Amino acid sequence: MVKDHERKLQEIKEAARKHCEDRDWDQFHGAKDLAVALSIEASELLEHFRFKSKKEVEELFKNPKKREEIEKEMADILYFLSRLAQKYDVDLSEAFDKGMERNKKNYPIEKAKGSNKKYDEF
Amino acid sequence: MVKDHERKLQEIKEAARKHCEDRDWDQFHGAKDLAVALSIEASELLEHFRFKSKKEVEELFKNPKKREEIEKEMADILYFLSRLAQKYDVDLSEAFDKGMERNKKNYPIEKAKGSNKKYDEF
Amino acid sequence: MVKDHERKLQEIKEAARKHCEDRDWDQFHGAKDLAVALSIEASELLEHFRFKSKKEVEELFKNPKKREEIEKEMADILYFLSRLAQKYDVDLSEAFDKGMERNKKNYPIEKAKGSNKKYDEF
Amino acid sequence: MVKDHERKLQEIKEAARKHCEDRDWDQFHGAKDLAVALSIEASELLEHFRFKSKKEVEELFKNPKKREEIEKEMADILYFLSRLAQKYDVDLSEAFDKGMERNKKNYPIEKAKGSNKKYDEF
Repeated sequence: MVKDHERKLQEIKEAARKHCEDRDWDQFHGAKDLAVALSIEASELLEHFRFKSKKEVEELFKNPKKREEIEKEMADILYFLSRLAQKYDVDLSEAFDKGMERNKKNYPIEKAKGSNKKYDEF
Repeated sequence: MVKDHERKLQEIKEAARKHCEDRDWDQFHGAKDLAVALSIEASELLEHFRFKSKKEVEELFKNPKKREEIEKEMADILYFLSRLAQKYDVDLSEAFDKGMERNKKNYPIEKAKGSNKKYDEF
Repeated sequence: MVKDHERKLQEIKEAARKHCEDRDWDQFHGAKDLAVALSIEASELLEHFRFKSKKEVEELFKNPKKREEIEKEMADILYFLSRLAQKYDVDLSEAFDKGMERNKKNYPIEKAKGSNKKYDEF
Repeated sequence: MVKDHERKLQEIKEAARKHCEDRDWDQFHGAKDLAVALSIEASELLEHFRFKSKKEVEELFKNPKKREEIEKEMADILYFLSRLAQKYDVDLSEAFDKGMERNKKNYPIEKAKGSNKKYDEF
């Protein structure tokens, strides 16, 4: 299988596009519904950790069946995110680079190191 | 700036890793807290479309300032997803390919074409 | 069964308290985990409407089985909200009254009538 | 101010109804958009606890300003939940009672006591 080392974001978007266009799903995939789907998938990921302690969460990743379920939810998030990006011509790489620039400004190392504060609490 | 055509998923994960390790954030970035963050960012994306009609949502993407805000939320989702994948050794490409195989089985073209039903409603 | 006309918020909180204390769940019910649970239940409610048109959503409420499923998710939200309020001594009525005062100020009738704008967009 | 000891659920629904009808918001308040709003408000509540330890979360409730912000989010959840119930003729008390019956069956005391397992994991 293809590894993250080789896989380009564009290929992910293209696979999502083909899957959805083959099924005539453009009509359902407005940005609002895709954001709803993203939000639901993020909650399904979170559900695996509900009421679990930090230690129990770490154990989940050592259980192959649980790990696969968690990875499935992560894949669903990537699918809807890349579909949204493809449908609305968003370059995720550019957006990510801008985001990391913003994160670096909001969280300068000297202030943010070892801190869990939000940038507006510094 | 780097485009999705060239950007590999591994590079996204590596940038997220470096940013977080430079700030000693491993201690805060358990899977539960990263999933909480993902869920919050997905909601912030969704908030742009709250109470908006399909047409109003499409207009948002034509407004450069609004589009940038939306792309910012998408970047935040990618950041936390790739950080989670990096921290727990998840190969997003493999998980995505498996997910698309599952989607193809759950939504065969002849049944799913033009339908917004969930697979368990066929 | 008791109707909303008679049911006091305090009774809801008391039922949630007893259920949880009978099961020694105080140890799991910190505010963070209860907020995670609330967020997941809100997503499960939303899932019923995913990719559905306005008309299809209205139809769901006419289907007794679907209506019951939707009401179940609403009950779960009320359960976790009242449990959180009970556990942290929050008077929901007071908070609600304050919230409605704030809503009235943020959305004065003359500006908000017939508008889906957020208050900071007026 | 009215306390939970006296406040009936019907009064909450009635206040939400009046507020929204005074502003001609029925047109925007379909179940899907109200569920989107609920999900967003639940995330805003959760955001207060993001990356925070159990101890830090408890401290938030001792800080009057933070407590007020948290109570505001809880009020918003109650507002959208009761508005949804009012708009679609849902008796929250009945739904809650049914939910508690279901919870009692799914989580019998002898199995659930002191356990954070989900009912399908017993």
